[in-house]
This record gives sequence, C-alpha cells and structure tokens, in this order.
Amino acid sequence: MEINYSELVSIKNVSVQRIEDAAVSSFLDTLSIEEPLEIRITYGSKTERVEKNISVTMRTPGHDIELAAGFLFTEGIITSFEDVKDAYHVKMNCLSQKQNIVQVDLKENFSPNLMQTDRNFYTTSSCGVCGKSSIQSIKTVSSFGHLLKPSVRIEASVFYQLPQKLRMAQSDFAATGGLHASGLFDNKGELILLSEDVGRHNALDKLIGQSFINKSLPLNEHILLLSGRASFELIQKAAMAGISTIASIGAPSSLAVELALEFNITLLGFLKENKFNIYSSSEQTVIITA
Amino acid sequence: MEINYSELVSIKNVSVQRIEDAAVSSFLDTLSIEEPLEIRITYGSKTERVEKNISVTMRTPGHDIELAAGFLFTEGIITSFEDVKDAYHVKMNCLSQKQNIVQVDLKENFSPNLMQTDRNFYTTSSCGVCGKSSIQSIKTVSSFGHLLKPSVRIEASVFYQLPQKLRMAQSDFAATGGLHASGLFDNKGELILLSEDVGRHNALDKLIGQSFINKSLPLNEHILLLSGRASFELIQKAAMAGISTIASIGAPSSLAVELALEFNITLLGFLKENKFNIYSSSEQTVIITA
Repeated sequence: MEINYSELVSIKNVSVQRIEDAAVSSFLDTLSIEEPLEIRITYGSKTERVEKNISVTMRTPGHDIELAAGFLFTEGIITSFEDVKDAYHVKMNCLSQKQNIVQVDLKENFSPNLMQTDRNFYTTSSCGVCGKSSIQSIKTVSSFGHLLKPSVRIEASVFYQLPQKLRMAQSDFAATGGLHASGLFDNKGELILLSEDVGRHNALDKLIGQSFINKSLPLNEHILLLSGRASFELIQKAAMAGISTIASIGAPSSLAVELALEFNITLLGFLKENKFNIYSSSEQTVIITA
Repeated sequence: MEINYSELVSIKNVSVQRIEDAAVSSFLDTLSIEEPLEIRITYGSKTERVEKNISVTMRTPGHDIELAAGFLFTEGIITSFEDVKDAYHVKMNCLSQKQNIVQVDLKENFSPNLMQTDRNFYTTSSCGVCGKSSIQSIKTVSSFGHLLKPSVRIEASVFYQLPQKLRMAQSDFAATGGLHASGLFDNKGELILLSEDVGRHNALDKLIGQSFINKSLPLNEHILLLSGRASFELIQKAAMAGISTIASIGAPSSLAVELALEFNITLLGFLKENKFNIYSSSEQTVIITA
C-alpha cells in the first residue's frame, strides 16, 4: 500500500514574558504541539466491517501513520504490515480541521489480536499485575523474542558519541526543549532514524512504526538511543521490534532492567560523552573498551 | 475511614558495570522500582456490589492509596473522599506477594462517574479528539474550575528557590536519578508536600490524592512545582485540584499552555535559580519582581 503522508505542524510560536533576576522582558518562544491522536482500526470480512477505537494518545503531530502502525505492532495487535490494507487520517466532524484521527483498515478476514488491548485487565485474574507476569505476557506475543541474534561488537567510543549525534539531529528539540527523542543507529554509530514526540512512548512507536512499514524489522544489529529514562514500556516496545542493544541517557527502572535481562537485551544507562553504566549485558553484544 | 498504610520498598540495589573512558569498574547502583498497580473500585447497593477495574499504571510502590484516590479524583470518577468507604491493598493470587492492587470500596448507593473512564472514546463522536474539546470536557467535570480564586502575591525570588528546595527534599531521586517529582509549596516557598514516582502523572496523583484524603482541596493558594515538563495531562490534574499557580522546570507543551489559559492558571516554565518564563498569567497571581 501507498501511504499518503500529510504535513502536520509540530511546533507553535507564542509570546512569552521572561523574568530574569528583577528584569522583565518579552520574546517569541516556540512550543512543541501536543494534541490527542485517536488510533482506530477496521477489520472483518468485506461485507461485515467492524470499527474499533484502539487508543487515544497525546502526541506531537507528524508521522502519525508510523505512530499508529508502530503502536499496533508494539502492542501485539498486528504482526505484519502485510495485514494492513490502508492507513490514513480521517476527517473530523468539527470545525477545527485538525488531523487527530488515524484509521488503519486491516485486510479482509485478518483477525487482529485484540486480547492485547485489554491485556491489563484480562491478565489480572491470573496475577497479571506482578511485574513477572507482565514480562511473561510480552514473551508470548513477541515475534522476535526467541530469535537467535547475531553477535555484534561495538566500541565503547561509538556509544560515547551517540548523545551528541542525537542532539545535533534533533531540530525540534533545539527549538522547544520539550521533546523526547528516539534514535536508531547502526553499530558504527551512524544515525539511521530519528523520531521526536512530547511522549517518549510515541517517539519510539514512530521509529519502530517506520521500520515496520519499511519491513526492516527485526532491528537486532542496531543500537536504540533513548533521550530520557528507560522505563518498562520502552523496553517492551524495543523487545517487540527485536532490538538487542539499548542505550539511555537517563536512568533505567527496576522492571526495565528485569525485562532487558529476560530478553537478552544489552541495556546501558546514564550514557555520557565518556562513560556509561551497563545494567544488562547479553553475550551477543560485545563492548570493546580499548 | 482509617487508612492502613503499608510500607512498600521503592528502590532496589543492583550490581552494575561502569565503563569510563577505557576503564571498566563495578559498583552497586540504586534503581527506582517500577511495578504495575491496578486500581479497582467496588460500588452499588449493600446487596449488589459491582467490581470494576479502572486502570493499570506503572508506578513506583509507595503511597498507593493516595495514588488511587488521587487518580479517581483527577479523572472525575469521584468528587469527595466522603464517598469512599475503604481503600486497601488486595492480596494477589500468586507467589510474588507483591502489593500491586488497590481496591477502593465506594459507599453504598454512591454512583461513580464512569463515563469519564471511557471519556476518550465517548467524546470522539462529537470530535473529542481535538484539543479544544478535551479542554471543554475537563471544564464540565472539574469541581473547582469556576471557583473564585483569592488573589495571591508571590515574589519572583520565591520561585527561584523552588527547584533547589525540591532537589534537597527528593531523597530517592538523589539515589536513583530516575524519579519524577511534584512539590506543593505555600506562596512563601515553604514545601508542604512532595511526591515521587517513575511516572510524572503518578507523582502528581499521589500529591493530589494526599490533599484529597486530608480534605485540603482546592489548592488555590499554593504553588505546584513539576520536576520535568508540563504536559496537558499534568495541567488537567492540577486544574481538577483547583491549583492556580504551576511552575515547571522543563518546557510546557502547546496544549498545556492552552489549558492553563482557559482555567486561569498561572503557568511558569524553564524555572531556574534566577529566571523563568511566564506562559500563562492569571490576574489572581501577581508576581513581584523587585
């Protein structure tokens, strides 16, 4: 299918007062736009189509099709872009003319895995809300969870350069200071993909969605760089995409580390220009220090 | 009602490798714990009780009752703590012994506003996913949205001191570097409440939940300090609690500013030790610069 990408505005200028010491001045500041996006699917037979609202997320407009595709994939609702017939913005029934709904039409007779959309509630009956079972439930739906990963050797100095490369490439962040970013690098440290959003999970879904649409998953020879902290949700999404090396500029959480260990993902935290911590190391990623 | 607060562990020590330049060392690092929490309510008559799962959020254990109460209040499901009969951790049906479910029993014949739990979906039929209607829907459920706020005069220097005061009080953050914080100050800059969590929305729900339980809402003569960025969701929660002055250390989003303007909330961003930007100013909060 061909995707019709519409240009959406992701920043907005506002007049702002600045107070500095005892002085007051005015200037034009740039804000990241945050707007709701509804992700909606249709599925069923040719004659009987079912429409279902899957999620509403607060996101920065732009790359919405990737965001929707990435979300549906990382949540385990669809597993191949072949199952998608079409994906597009739906016109809203109001005056705002905003493009805040993306509809994904699934191919005829393809059954989306909608158990996953209610995962949080379904699994509680069998103790779904202990972290351990959250990890198990991801294992059951991940296409790449048990994939044999190729061995990769990466120089420590390659990691040291990533934060600077991400910042250089983050044009919107430079303007607003208000966006999370996800960057995909090859194991020589070359930037391949970058995505930005007010929501860190959206930034990662946009990045994975783009790879999903381009059929370049799994990303098991790449490095994923997260601009902030590494939470469970981000590692979960990365695991779904078969990513085997993750570096975060901030701290990881306990459950993020547990999930990385379980999925044999190398997880680095507090990445700076000359150092980082290793919270989980897989035998497939060899880090060379000298 | 009396709340039975259980002591939950919120940090965890792990052994970590540090790579610095070409050197490798080992040390014991402290992580913020991230675990799912299910918030569950029961309601109905004495003889016919209905149990409903409201939400599962990834949170840092601790102050779970406040988190649940705060969430139910800021989402508009309950409006008074008088409607709560009891709130407690439910034992899970598994070996982990984790305390990851909070059940809130509502008083007999009290009807929770459950339309709000499906808000995102219900409102889409009338264009619920343009930011404007998100703002309108909050107006309709907020108890304090139209409250006449007292006029407050705050010295700019009071704001300058807040980030440092928050950091000093943030014990867990100092250890892990991985927690968001919300701080409540009076208008002289005295810290009244502090809460921390891996999720910024949880940190704020814990803070508001505590005030809700103590019946100290609305917080319309206070300053709310956010450790990170100001998103729509955070301003929404603050608006529900009647907060009229918000300062964030990071950037606000476009919709956060629009909501603050609509609710007559003073919103400061990029707060540092000698400066800040004013994104929304209400006539009730007078900032004195000299």
